[in-house]
Amino acid sequence: MSPHRTPDSSRRSDRSRRAIHEAALALVGEVGYARTTIEGIAARAGVGKQTIYRWWPSKAAVLLDAFLDMAARQAAEADASGGGGEGGIPDTGDLATDLKLVLRATVDELNDPATEAPTRALTAEGVVDPVLGAQFVESLLEPQLQLYVTRLRAGQESGEVRADVDPRVAVELLVAPLAHRWLLRTLPLTHAYADAVVDHALRGLSARG
Amino acid sequence: MSPHRTPDSSRRSDRSRRAIHEAALALVGEVGYARTTIEGIAARAGVGKQTIYRWWPSKAAVLLDAFLDMAARQAAEADASGGGGEGGIPDTGDLATDLKLVLRATVDELNDPATEAPTRALTAEGVVDPVLGAQFVESLLEPQLQLYVTRLRAGQESGEVRADVDPRVAVELLVAPLAHRWLLRTLPLTHAYADAVVDHALRGLSARG
Repeated sequence: MSPHRTPDSSRRSDRSRRAIHEAALALVGEVGYARTTIEGIAARAGVGKQTIYRWWPSKAAVLLDAFLDMAARQAAEADASGGGGEGGIPDTGDLATDLKLVLRATVDELNDPATEAPTRALTAEGVVDPVLGAQFVESLLEPQLQLYVTRLRAGQESGEVRADVDPRVAVELLVAPLAHRWLLRTLPLTHAYADAVVDHALRGLSARG
Repeated sequence: MSPHRTPDSSRRSDRSRRAIHEAALALVGEVGYARTTIEGIAARAGVGKQTIYRWWPSKAAVLLDAFLDMAARQAAEADASGGGGEGGIPDTGDLATDLKLVLRATVDELNDPATEAPTRALTAEGVVDPVLGAQFVESLLEPQLQLYVTRLRAGQESGEVRADVDPRVAVELLVAPLAHRWLLRTLPLTHAYADAVVDHALRGLSARG
């Protein structure tokens, strides 16, 4: 039994929100973002379209909220299983191993056919729409990047990471190559690639100094 | 006088193509990609819309061709001025300096308000449309990435770059952070950032080994 009793109306709202999220994700996967409409989402979720308009200004906002909800549930699951702490990056004292673990998991998430189409649609909308892009970064992307910053700072304290490295720049050397390969589909996004990015970023490219 | 005389009809075609490219780039900048139509491009370029449909299957294809034409002209200018050779990356023997030069220029290009909107529109289309994305990568992006591969290989031969570095992975550590910051607008894309990416990538993040 839940320690906090939720009033029925709030529980109904939660059920509706979840149904709307799932309908939006599924529709974008099936017919594409351009042909997904608020009407279509409402019909599939079994709610009136006014319910959607009351909570969200656009289909992009529904999609962003669906991903935020998914991220919150994943973090809660990680907490419940005791691993990683708030979805953070593990610190075994071996930075390369810890980074490869999380970046391989990122590869698997990006390649997951269940979420690939809506993730691509939301990212592409953010590329052309600065307001949505800012919401996407602030609420979803930057908090994830800060988990790497925290791990890299701990590495600086323990002497694993060079003291003169800017952790916020370093995180982009690790994450951006995977995002770039996935977004632009230049080459296959694999675990081997995640490992190679970590190895190259940690050791550096230069033969001198 | 041009050494190769172009027949009148071919010269007219070139003029029309250029006018269509410019109309497409300008329209996307002014009204956005979604509201740019083949009809609108034709009206602005002063051609019939059948002329456009004869050469291109979609507005995305017009846009891609406009960027290819721009890249070809930039490469021709670089050749004519004797610098860089085929738009390649200079090799002064100082890899950090050479990379900072070209990555700063990339920052300026990405931040150029004259091309930002169509570049974003084309990239976003490639994110959601695998066929267009593959054309974008094959014709425009990968040839640019290969210029970095060539410079990094030369660096391996001269002993500047570690022999165990995979140049095709290394190029993504250099280019992807800039693309990521620009596409997702996480933080400002500046010359100082380009320099920091080069320094972090060359030296590596690790304090050990």
